[in-house]
Amino acid sequence: MFGARCLLRALRSCTSAPCPRHKPSARLSVRDALGARSTNGERVKVQGWIRSVRSQKEVLFLHINDGSSLESLQVVADSSFDSRELAFGSSVEVQGQLVKSPSKKQNVELKAEKIEIVGNCDAKDSGFVHIHTPIITSNDCEGAGELFQVEPSSKIKVPEENFFNVPAFLTVSGQLHLEVMSGAFTQVFTFGPTFRAENSQSRRHLAEFYMVEAEISFVESLQDLMQVMEGLFKTATMMVLSNCTEDVELCHKFIAPGQKDRLEHMLKNNFLIISYTEAVEILKQASQNFTFTPEWGVDLHTEHEKYLVKHCGNIPVFVINYPLALKPFYMRDNEDGPQHTVAAVDLLVPGVGELFGGSLREERYHFLEQRLARSGLTEAYQWYLDLRRFGSVPHGGFGMGFERYLQCILGIDNIKDVIPFPRFTHSCVL
Amino acid sequence: MFGARCLLRALRSCTSAPCPRHKPSARLSVRDALGARSTNGERVKVQGWIRSVRSQKEVLFLHINDGSSLESLQVVADSSFDSRELAFGSSVEVQGQLVKSPSKKQNVELKAEKIEIVGNCDAKDSGFVHIHTPIITSNDCEGAGELFQVEPSSKIKVPEENFFNVPAFLTVSGQLHLEVMSGAFTQVFTFGPTFRAENSQSRRHLAEFYMVEAEISFVESLQDLMQVMEGLFKTATMMVLSNCTEDVELCHKFIAPGQKDRLEHMLKNNFLIISYTEAVEILKQASQNFTFTPEWGVDLHTEHEKYLVKHCGNIPVFVINYPLALKPFYMRDNEDGPQHTVAAVDLLVPGVGELFGGSLREERYHFLEQRLARSGLTEAYQWYLDLRRFGSVPHGGFGMGFERYLQCILGIDNIKDVIPFPRFTHSCVL
Repeated sequence: MFGARCLLRALRSCTSAPCPRHKPSARLSVRDALGARSTNGERVKVQGWIRSVRSQKEVLFLHINDGSSLESLQVVADSSFDSRELAFGSSVEVQGQLVKSPSKKQNVELKAEKIEIVGNCDAKDSGFVHIHTPIITSNDCEGAGELFQVEPSSKIKVPEENFFNVPAFLTVSGQLHLEVMSGAFTQVFTFGPTFRAENSQSRRHLAEFYMVEAEISFVESLQDLMQVMEGLFKTATMMVLSNCTEDVELCHKFIAPGQKDRLEHMLKNNFLIISYTEAVEILKQASQNFTFTPEWGVDLHTEHEKYLVKHCGNIPVFVINYPLALKPFYMRDNEDGPQHTVAAVDLLVPGVGELFGGSLREERYHFLEQRLARSGLTEAYQWYLDLRRFGSVPHGGFGMGFERYLQCILGIDNIKDVIPFPRFTHSCVL
Repeated sequence: MFGARCLLRALRSCTSAPCPRHKPSARLSVRDALGARSTNGERVKVQGWIRSVRSQKEVLFLHINDGSSLESLQVVADSSFDSRELAFGSSVEVQGQLVKSPSKKQNVELKAEKIEIVGNCDAKDSGFVHIHTPIITSNDCEGAGELFQVEPSSKIKVPEENFFNVPAFLTVSGQLHLEVMSGAFTQVFTFGPTFRAENSQSRRHLAEFYMVEAEISFVESLQDLMQVMEGLFKTATMMVLSNCTEDVELCHKFIAPGQKDRLEHMLKNNFLIISYTEAVEILKQASQNFTFTPEWGVDLHTEHEKYLVKHCGNIPVFVINYPLALKPFYMRDNEDGPQHTVAAVDLLVPGVGELFGGSLREERYHFLEQRLARSGLTEAYQWYLDLRRFGSVPHGGFGMGFERYLQCILGIDNIKDVIPFPRFTHSCVL
C-alpha cells in the first residue's frame, strides 16, 4: 500500500541527485554517530542527505542519512534555521552537539548549531511526465505471445465479430506507448497494471502485476540508463525506509530477519556491471550443477540469475548486451559479431533475480525496418516505424516489476504476499 | 497528464479542510484586490487559502485564493516570515501594502507586513489509504452485464477451460474491493482504469476510462458523503488551476471560451441537492420536449441530466434517493414507500451530466441477504455478505469519472480528447 507514491516521487527526483562537496576535515558517519556510547555533548560534524523534515512551532526535526546505515540520525534545530532549503534530498553538513535523545525512538540525536546546505534538491525539476498508457491494446509489445485477449462477455451482442474491429489484448508493457510520448515530452513514465497469461506457479510471477516504466529521449548509452535505474532503486528505497519505517521494520522483524543488513549492503555499494557473455562464462565455470545448462545464445534461468547475484557478493548486478536472437525487434543492434548482441540490460537482485529490464531502442529507420521485416511485423508496426521517420532520436527505457521490488526490499519470499488481490493460474478470488 | 497527482493529493486533503475564523473588520476580497486600479501603497487585509508556496533565498511567494476569483493574489513576503506553516491549504490573513507588480503575470501584488495563520492544513493527516484494486476480477459489481471477458489468447494452450478456473472479467469498479479494505483502513481510495463493453458512440463514454473511487467507514448520512464529494471536486480543481495554470488557460482560450466564468460559478456556489422524486417533477413540468418521457421509476437520461443542471442555474446538483428497483443490491434501503428508494447519490455537472455516483452501502445483514436472494446472487456474493457478519459498520463511497472531470473543468466537448489513447467501439489504435 505504501510504496507507489514514494516510488513515483523518487522517479521524479532521481535525476536531480545532489552533488556533494567533500571537505577534508574529520567527521562522524551517521553509523558512528548512532552508535556513540558517551554523549557528553561533544561537538561533531555529520554530512548526508535529508530524508525527512518535520517542523513544529519552536523546533525543526531533520533525519539525515549518509548511506553508512539504514537508520537515519535525528537532527534537532531551533526555529531560527531557515527551513525552506532544508528539503528532502538536499545534502547538508550539520555541526552541533551529540546528546542523549529524550525520545525512546533513538539513543542519541544531534543538536544543530550550524547547518550548511551543500547541494539543493528541487524535486520538481526532474521533468518525468506521468502518462496513462492504455490497458487494452492491439499491440503485442514483447512478441512473446503470453497474452490475455479481451472480448465482450457472451451476454452482450455486438454486430461485428470484434468489439474493437481488431483483436484486443491486455497490455504486457506500456513501452511502445511511452515511446510515442517521449517523442514529445522527452522523459516520461507510467505506473500501472500489466498482464501475462503465463501458466506459472512460481513465487515470482503473477498474471496481473504493476510496473514502473520509464522512457528517455536523447539517451545514447546503457551507462546513462543504468544510472537512472540504480538511482531509482536507491532513492525509492531510502524514501520507503524513511517514510514507512514501521511497516518495513515489521516485515524485517517477523518475516525476514537479516534482510535489513542485506538491504544496507545493496544500498551502500555501487551496482556491478557484467556482459551477458561474461555471465555465461561465470556460469560455465561454476561448481554448481544447474537444471538448465548455461550456454551462449540461451536465456538465463532463475537459477542462473540467483547464482550470478551470489557470485557478485549479493550486490545487484546489471547484465548487458544480450544475444540479438533472444530479444524483441525494438532493441538497438550493437553491430558486433560473430556473437551478435543488442544493447539490452537486466538488473538482477538478491532473492528475486530479474527486477528491471531495459534497453536502448533501435532508433535507426533502416535497422528497424529490416528487423520488423524479418519478424513479419512490418505491417502491424508501420506506426512504430513512422516514429523513426519523423524526428527520431536515440532513446531508451526500462521497466521495474513493482511487486518484485517490494519482495526485494521487504524480504518477502512469495510474490502473492505483496499484492492485496493476487491473480495467477487457477485463482481469481473476489 | 497533469490531473492525476493533483487529484490524489486533493482527495487526501479534502477531509481536513481548514476552518476559517471570521473577523468583523473590513477586508478586500481577492477579486477586488486583483481589480484594484490605484495601487498607491494602501494598506489592505486579505483572507483566503494558500494555493501555492514558492520560496527563494530572500523572498517568499504565496498565492492566495478566497473563491471570489479563479485567479489568485500573489503575496510577497521577506524571508523573516516562518514558512513552515505557510503550506498549501492553510487559511491565512495577510495584511500589507497593495503595490504594482514588477512581473507581467499580474498587475498588483500584496507586500506582506503581517501573515497570520488562521487554520493549519497538514495534508498528511487526512488518512485516505491508496489501494490497488485488481483489474481482473470474478465479480460483476454493477450487475449490469456490460463486461469484457478475459481469456488467454488462442495462441496459448492451458489445460483447463478457464485460465483462472472461473470466468474472469475486466473490472467495472473497485468498489467491492475497497469495501473489503475500508473494513481495515477506515478511509480508502483507488485511482485506476475501469472498463465497460458499452456499444456507445457518445461524447461521454469510453470502453477504458479512469475512476477515482473512495470508500469511507463509519459514514451514516448521504450529507457526509456529499461533503467529501464537493470538497474533492473543489479542492482538486483549485489545485489544478494553481499548479497547471498554463495548460488550463490554453484550453479555455482556444477550445472553450467562457469556460473560465462557468467554472468560477461552480466553485463559488454551494452545490445543490434535490431528490430523484423532485427531479422527476421538475422534468415533468419542463416546457422542453424530451426524447425520453420522464417518469418516476425510470432512469434519468443525459438530456434530463443536462436540463436539471440548467434548471439549477448551472450549479452542480446532487440528485439523491433513487428508486430501489433501478439500483444494484448493495445500496442502502431507505425503508420508505410507497415509492421505495435507496440512499444513492449522483452529482450532475454542467456540460457533462453525471460526474460522480455514490451511495451508502447496505450494512445490515438481513437486508442485504434478502436483496441478494431476490437477485439470485446469494452464492456468488457470500464473501460480501460475510463482511456484514464480522464487524459491519455503516459506510459509503463514491466514484468519479476522471475523463469526465477533465471535460468538465477544461470545457472539452468530446471525452476522446482528454485521454491519450482512447478506446471505444470499433477503435483500439496502437
